[in-house]
Amino acid sequence: MHRRTLTVREVERAVAPGVRQRLWTYDGTAPGPTLHGRIGDTFVITLVNHGSMGHSVDFHAGTLAPDRPMRTIAPGQSLTYRFTATKAGIWLYHCASMPMDAHIASGMFGAVVIDPPHLPPVAHSYVLVQSELYLGPQGGTVNLAKLNAERPDEVVFNGYADQYDHAPLTAKVGQRVRSGVLDAGPDRPTSLHVVGGQFDTVYEEGSYRLRRGTTRSSRT
Amino acid sequence: MHRRTLTVREVERAVAPGVRQRLWTYDGTAPGPTLHGRIGDTFVITLVNHGSMGHSVDFHAGTLAPDRPMRTIAPGQSLTYRFTATKAGIWLYHCASMPMDAHIASGMFGAVVIDPPHLPPVAHSYVLVQSELYLGPQGGTVNLAKLNAERPDEVVFNGYADQYDHAPLTAKVGQRVRSGVLDAGPDRPTSLHVVGGQFDTVYEEGSYRLRRGTTRSSRT
Amino acid sequence: MHRRTLTVREVERAVAPGVRQRLWTYDGTAPGPTLHGRIGDTFVITLVNHGSMGHSVDFHAGTLAPDRPMRTIAPGQSLTYRFTATKAGIWLYHCASMPMDAHIASGMFGAVVIDPPHLPPVAHSYVLVQSELYLGPQGGTVNLAKLNAERPDEVVFNGYADQYDHAPLTAKVGQRVRSGVLDAGPDRPTSLHVVGGQFDTVYEEGSYRLRRGTTRSSRT
Repeated sequence: MHRRTLTVREVERAVAPGVRQRLWTYDGTAPGPTLHGRIGDTFVITLVNHGSMGHSVDFHAGTLAPDRPMRTIAPGQSLTYRFTATKAGIWLYHCASMPMDAHIASGMFGAVVIDPPHLPPVAHSYVLVQSELYLGPQGGTVNLAKLNAERPDEVVFNGYADQYDHAPLTAKVGQRVRSGVLDAGPDRPTSLHVVGGQFDTVYEEGSYRLRRGTTRSSRT
Repeated sequence: MHRRTLTVREVERAVAPGVRQRLWTYDGTAPGPTLHGRIGDTFVITLVNHGSMGHSVDFHAGTLAPDRPMRTIAPGQSLTYRFTATKAGIWLYHCASMPMDAHIASGMFGAVVIDPPHLPPVAHSYVLVQSELYLGPQGGTVNLAKLNAERPDEVVFNGYADQYDHAPLTAKVGQRVRSGVLDAGPDRPTSLHVVGGQFDTVYEEGSYRLRRGTTRSSRT
Repeated sequence: MHRRTLTVREVERAVAPGVRQRLWTYDGTAPGPTLHGRIGDTFVITLVNHGSMGHSVDFHAGTLAPDRPMRTIAPGQSLTYRFTATKAGIWLYHCASMPMDAHIASGMFGAVVIDPPHLPPVAHSYVLVQSELYLGPQGGTVNLAKLNAERPDEVVFNGYADQYDHAPLTAKVGQRVRSGVLDAGPDRPTSLHVVGGQFDTVYEEGSYRLRRGTTRSSRT
C-alpha cells in the first residue's frame, strides 16, 4: 500500500537559465514526484488543491473514471483516490481540468512507474519525462497562443532546458542502466536516442520489444 | 465473397455543430462505409462515380496496383475491383486521385476490417477512424492553404467534431470491448488513449503487441 | 574488417528538377554512401574533412562517444574511427557538429546496414533514406528559418524530390524485395507505405515485428 499526498501549488520556478515561469505543480515541481510500485500494489493518493483555480489528477496507471473519482476539485478542497496497478510500465499522471493542455503545459504532470516482474538489477535507474515549454513573459504563465499553435520554445527533460548537458546522468562503461521514458507532451512525440549507446532491452507500451537474451535467441 | 457498390457523391454535410462543408464521399458519408471480412475472403467492389470530377479508390487491404486496376475514373463511369484479403488488420481505403491529400481531407476515406483468426467474443465492437478537418467557408470545400500548412481546424473521430463527448460509446464495467482504430489523416498521427481504461490486447500493424494471457505468461 | 574513407565535400548538387543547392556531404552525395556488414563485423572509417568548416561523423551502428572519438575536426584534418557492430538494423550516421540539424539538413547523413543472421535471399534489395529539404536560394545553402520552423519544402527519399516517380524501383509480381528504410530527418517522422503492396516481414528497432512463417503460426 502506497499512501501519498500530492499538493497542488502554483509557484514561480526557473525553467531555463534566467527564465522564470509561473507553474502549476504537484508538490511544487514540474514534473511532479515520481511514484513507484509493482504489479498488484495499491496506491492511495490524496490530492490537496492549494491553487487558485480548479485542478485534478488523472492516473493512467489505474482505471478510475476521471469524471467521477478523479474529478476537478476547487481551491481548498481535497480528494482521495485509490487504485491498484495491474499492468507494468511508466504511466502518466496529469491534471485533466479544462483546458487540459494548458494545465499540462503549465507543469501538472508526472510519472507512476510500475515494474514488470523479475527486473534484473542495474547500476543506475533514471526517469526521463519529456515535456514542452510554451514560454509566457518572465514570471508569467504559459503562452496559450504558442500552445494552440503547437510551437513550443523548448522540448525538455524533467522540466528544465538542457539540464543534462550541464549535469549529465552518469554511468561507467559496462554498467547497465535502466531509464524510464515518459512523454508528457502535451503535443510533441519523443524520439529518444542515447548518443553513443544502444539499448539491449526495451519494454514499451506493455510488453518487451527487445529483451537481452530472449530476443537474441528468437532471432538466431 | 463480399459484393459491394461504393458510389461517389459530392454532398454538403455537417462536420461540427453549425458547420457545414461540401464533402466528397463514398456513399454520402465521411468516413465511407466500413467493410468487414476474414482472411481468405474475396471482395468485389464496384466504384460508381457520381461526382463532378475524377475519383478513385485504393484499397490497402488488397494488393492491387492503383495505376491500373484502381485507376481514376471520370464522372459517370464505374469500375469493379476484386481483391482477396490475406492479412488481418484495419486497412485504409481512400481516393488516390490527385491532389490526393485534398481528396482524403474532403472525406474520401474508410476502413476495411479483416479479423485475425480466433477472435474472442466481445460485448461491443467499435471502429474509430481519425481524420482532420481543414475548414473552408460555410458550405464550401476544403481549405487548401490550411491543408498545405498542415494546420487542421479539428482532428475528429468518424468525421464529426467531439461527437463522442455528446454521445459516448458505451460499455459496462467488466465488459470486453474491441475497437478498430484507423488513422486516415491525411497528416496527423494518432495517440489514442481511453481515459480511465487500459488495453489488455493490442493488434497493430499485422501482429499482436499485447495479448491477454499470452503476453502475460511470456513476461512472468 | 571494413576499411573505408569518407571525405567531406561541400558541393553544389541538384535536389529536384532545376533546383540546385550547396550541400555538405560525405563523398559528394546526400545521403552519403551506404555501408553494409554483419553482426560482429568491425568497421574502420577514416573521415577526411575537405570542407570549409568543422565537421564530424556519429555512427549509431557503434557505441563510440561523439564528444571524444567522434569529435568535430577542422578543415584539412582527418580522424579514424573503429567500431564493431553488435546489433542488426539500419543505423543512421550523421554529422554531429553544431548546429547539428543544419549539418544534417545540408546533406550529412547516411546509413549503415547490419544484417540480422539468416536473412533469406531476395530478388531485389533497396535502401531508402528519408530526409527533408529546406531550400535556400538557387545554388545557396539550407534555409535556417524554414529549418527552425520545421517547414520543409520537400520530404524526399535518397536526396532527390520525387525521383522514384520518374525512375521506379522495380520488381516483378511474386518476387521478394527487401527494403532498408531509415529516417534521417532531421525533423519529420516517416510513414512509409508501399502502394499496392503489403509487408510480410518487418524488422524494426532491433527485432522482428512481423516474420513470414513465424508470426503467422503464432497467430493461428
